[in-house]
Amino acid sequence: MSDSKVYIFDTTLRDGEQVPGCKLNTKEKIELALQLESLGVDIIEAGFPISSPGDFESVNQIAKTIKNATICGLSRAVQKDIEVAAEALKPAARRRIHTGIGTSDFHIKSKFNATREEILERAIQAVKWARNFTDDVEFYAEDAGRTDNEYLARVVEAVIKAGATTVNIPDTTGYCLPHQYGEKIAYLINKVPNVDKAVLSCHCHNDLGLATANSIAGVVAGARQIECTINGLGERAGNTALEEVVMILKQHHLGLYTDVNAKMLNPLSRLVSETMRMPVQPNKAIVGANAFSHSSGIHQDGFLKDAQTYEIINPVEVGAEESKIVLTARSGRSALAHRLQKLGFQYTRNDIDVLYQEFLKVADAKKEVLEDDLVQLSKSYQKEAVVA
Amino acid sequence: MSDSKVYIFDTTLRDGEQVPGCKLNTKEKIELALQLESLGVDIIEAGFPISSPGDFESVNQIAKTIKNATICGLSRAVQKDIEVAAEALKPAARRRIHTGIGTSDFHIKSKFNATREEILERAIQAVKWARNFTDDVEFYAEDAGRTDNEYLARVVEAVIKAGATTVNIPDTTGYCLPHQYGEKIAYLINKVPNVDKAVLSCHCHNDLGLATANSIAGVVAGARQIECTINGLGERAGNTALEEVVMILKQHHLGLYTDVNAKMLNPLSRLVSETMRMPVQPNKAIVGANAFSHSSGIHQDGFLKDAQTYEIINPVEVGAEESKIVLTARSGRSALAHRLQKLGFQYTRNDIDVLYQEFLKVADAKKEVLEDDLVQLSKSYQKEAVVA
Repeated sequence: MSDSKVYIFDTTLRDGEQVPGCKLNTKEKIELALQLESLGVDIIEAGFPISSPGDFESVNQIAKTIKNATICGLSRAVQKDIEVAAEALKPAARRRIHTGIGTSDFHIKSKFNATREEILERAIQAVKWARNFTDDVEFYAEDAGRTDNEYLARVVEAVIKAGATTVNIPDTTGYCLPHQYGEKIAYLINKVPNVDKAVLSCHCHNDLGLATANSIAGVVAGARQIECTINGLGERAGNTALEEVVMILKQHHLGLYTDVNAKMLNPLSRLVSETMRMPVQPNKAIVGANAFSHSSGIHQDGFLKDAQTYEIINPVEVGAEESKIVLTARSGRSALAHRLQKLGFQYTRNDIDVLYQEFLKVADAKKEVLEDDLVQLSKSYQKEAVVA
Repeated sequence: MSDSKVYIFDTTLRDGEQVPGCKLNTKEKIELALQLESLGVDIIEAGFPISSPGDFESVNQIAKTIKNATICGLSRAVQKDIEVAAEALKPAARRRIHTGIGTSDFHIKSKFNATREEILERAIQAVKWARNFTDDVEFYAEDAGRTDNEYLARVVEAVIKAGATTVNIPDTTGYCLPHQYGEKIAYLINKVPNVDKAVLSCHCHNDLGLATANSIAGVVAGARQIECTINGLGERAGNTALEEVVMILKQHHLGLYTDVNAKMLNPLSRLVSETMRMPVQPNKAIVGANAFSHSSGIHQDGFLKDAQTYEIINPVEVGAEESKIVLTARSGRSALAHRLQKLGFQYTRNDIDVLYQEFLKVADAKKEVLEDDLVQLSKSYQKEAVVA
């Protein structure tokens, strides 16, 4: 059987952009949309058109500019929202309306003061209304992660019957464990009779640090779309990080693939971080500044003998700079010899043994031993050698 | 059956401290060790004593200072390493020597140019040697994540027979998927005849964003120790984040608990970030600046009706500031009314409708609408109202 494609639905410009401090103007949004298109994402969620006149304009301009990716606009299950989204998306070559409503009892009672039956009816009406404007309608069952599976299956069946072509199963609060989220998707695949007429989508939040694992559990169980953002931006602790799920599907043989060009992951991560002014921590997987740095002596020694001992991804594959051998007080003789050699200093093993003790004195006093320190170290040593 | 305890083994001062730029002096290491002891971690890995005279001194001083937590020192499976670690740990009330060697074929061939049998023998000798200095010996099977399970089971059985009381199964390169890591632990629990005489430990790296999920899969499968760091610091993309695994075990009913005092998680995260000069990204789970911020209108409206609609953890529980309602162009009427009310401005629903349109103009032009902007907005509106 040939591998199945997992659609990558990027929501950096919607779920990412709604984060405090991340708001973009139309020009910035268009620039990022063009980059996302080059990256190879299948769907770009460009914004929430009814939220403000500025966001309407951004979605509308992106719809005019992007030719290959599908452009999606968010809306609540409200007629006016859907109409405004449809209007903003009109110029798009491929357009998708994303509409939905909360389906967990928390949401039904606290947010809507409604019943399950009323919510089901509103869901159906929203999808039907959206289908007047496009054939590509995605329905989100908000807080699906905490929604009773039996009721969720009824909602999914009903919205597919009403015309939804993608059904999003969000773990809105980031509560699920991977096996629970996987089982939820598997339940829907098994119980919803018309499930083959739509793509199930994973939209996981990272409140417990599990968004990536949950999304992977979802596609392994049969979902075929992942909603994600560059650098894992998004409400609160953020969404699934696009770079992580793409690289997992690339590194592991799960019978699944995406069309993302991994070489763009690091450059685009930096662009998003700068444009949205949201720093990426150095220890962020795939795109953090230290993701390919080796500093302990044990690791450096192994890495220098064979990179595969400590690296499962070649940094070049994800557009990062080549792996770094950083010298600190935890570094060993091999790393010291390697760095000295790069500077043109060749030493015997005995020389390195002596130099290493001097190196440790410098290293214990500093965070990192730099090139200048090494040149100094080497010069003092040669001087002593001459005197001796 | 009563819940089982999962031991928290903190390696912020060892795996975290070896990161480029994170090196600490002895005074800083002691301060953090005292905080980790208050946090309630069971084992503090204080350093790698043979790596440098400075680190020997730090481990030695921590061993003298800490009374309740076990103090652990790292060593390779080398007699000299173990002796130096033992010497540094001598003053500790409870001391553990952590020794080990690479067991994957990658490591056996590329790093050691050895055979499986030779490595097995070195593992046994190292544990026996360490047992001369303490009854609490932990063995690590480096790159266990990529080690053949059958051989790994032989190693685990042999080191337990040699006297190891904890056996660490590291996913050194961060390669495993959660179900694979869980199956590896389950395999060992089922196949190693003397496994009940030791605690199995999870030490997962985050290269694919899966360290937390893998650690949880490990303890669900029967491991009873998690090795982790504050803020997920560590080599490359880092280790398992302590705050994430602790809160997952607290929020989910898995029959497992830890002794960590969650209220210290945010203060200690900030202290570690400042002392080690390693920024935490705003969208970091549990301890990021935005982990409890709500900015989209849909979320704010739900949150104001009932916090549980969008929050699974009360920020107070983890020592964070109370949840924030940030005003941006994606905010809605409820959030605007709420923030105006906090400033002393009471409006009717109709007033809010009018004010909201003015608010959106300000918001579309700015990243965030601040208190001053709201006061200005309210004043202009009242003025107009008087004139009308």
